[in-house]
Amino acid sequence: MRRKSFGDMQCPIARSLERVGERWSMLILRDGSLGLTRFDQFQESLGIAPNILTRRLKSLVEAGLIERRRYSERPPRYEYVVTPAGRDFRSVLWAFIAWGNKHFAPEGPSVVIVDSKTGAAADPILVDRVSGRPLAAPDFCSAPGPAASAQTRQRHPAAPQTRRSSSASNPSRP
Amino acid sequence: MRRKSFGDMQCPIARSLERVGERWSMLILRDGSLGLTRFDQFQESLGIAPNILTRRLKSLVEAGLIERRRYSERPPRYEYVVTPAGRDFRSVLWAFIAWGNKHFAPEGPSVVIVDSKTGAAADPILVDRVSGRPLAAPDFCSAPGPAASAQTRQRHPAAPQTRRSSSASNPSRP
Repeated sequence: MRRKSFGDMQCPIARSLERVGERWSMLILRDGSLGLTRFDQFQESLGIAPNILTRRLKSLVEAGLIERRRYSERPPRYEYVVTPAGRDFRSVLWAFIAWGNKHFAPEGPSVVIVDSKTGAAADPILVDRVSGRPLAAPDFCSAPGPAASAQTRQRHPAAPQTRRSSSASNPSRP
Repeated sequence: MRRKSFGDMQCPIARSLERVGERWSMLILRDGSLGLTRFDQFQESLGIAPNILTRRLKSLVEAGLIERRRYSERPPRYEYVVTPAGRDFRSVLWAFIAWGNKHFAPEGPSVVIVDSKTGAAADPILVDRVSGRPLAAPDFCSAPGPAASAQTRQRHPAAPQTRRSSSASNPSRP
């Protein structure tokens, strides 16, 4: 059966999932962000079948999130390095860490975000970059943006009329 | 083939993906967060096959992220309402919106986060709740938490010794 493409959808969540929504892809980006680059490193860390790892790496390379680099000529050997766009995905991974720790870690957190120098644990929260206000409902909501289609507008019936604020010259930059 | 369970892994990202990592699940939570509750509403919004929607709703109910409520006795009819834990997932969805807008929306953002009252666009960024510092590498990194196994520690070879800060009484609360 041909699967419906999420990439054709206008929603930025769907377009993201088109790139990273396959099982394993986000865990590969997690490990790549932690510095893993070799096929056998990923395989060992994930306990993933080699054929599936090959496919997932290929699709992440096609999505521009991982770069395949030859690091040995004879024999030819490749490593897989997270690109700047893939490194940017860290914000999503860290949001997952916060949510997972809160709801699915009855024994306590096994992974936390810390200050790299001091080791002090951070408490991740999404805020508006300019005002510093926490991005939480009901104070904030998602709403159709400038490029929204009729369907996207329909999906947000209660959204306020969006206007550009001083922070909106590039509203997507995290 | 039996699929490896992500829920058995210790990583909070993997445990989260065990609940929401199936294709469609996050888009269902997106629509539920926007107020959709009826089966046919989800079906129309997503363009998803009914049998797949049934399966995904069932797994989200089992994960405690959506509640199935009878709203009509005769005929028996059910609605699907996002639970508090499911609403909490908004932080991850909004991180996806920011990342997707930045990298996969060449025509401009079609969905943005706005102030519910004024409609002013927000610029989402992950910060430490206490210090307000942006959670970005290399200043911050993920590190083994109190409940980390040997494998989780091994995955973070460069992580600093984690210590509890004033914000760490509940480091997982977003």
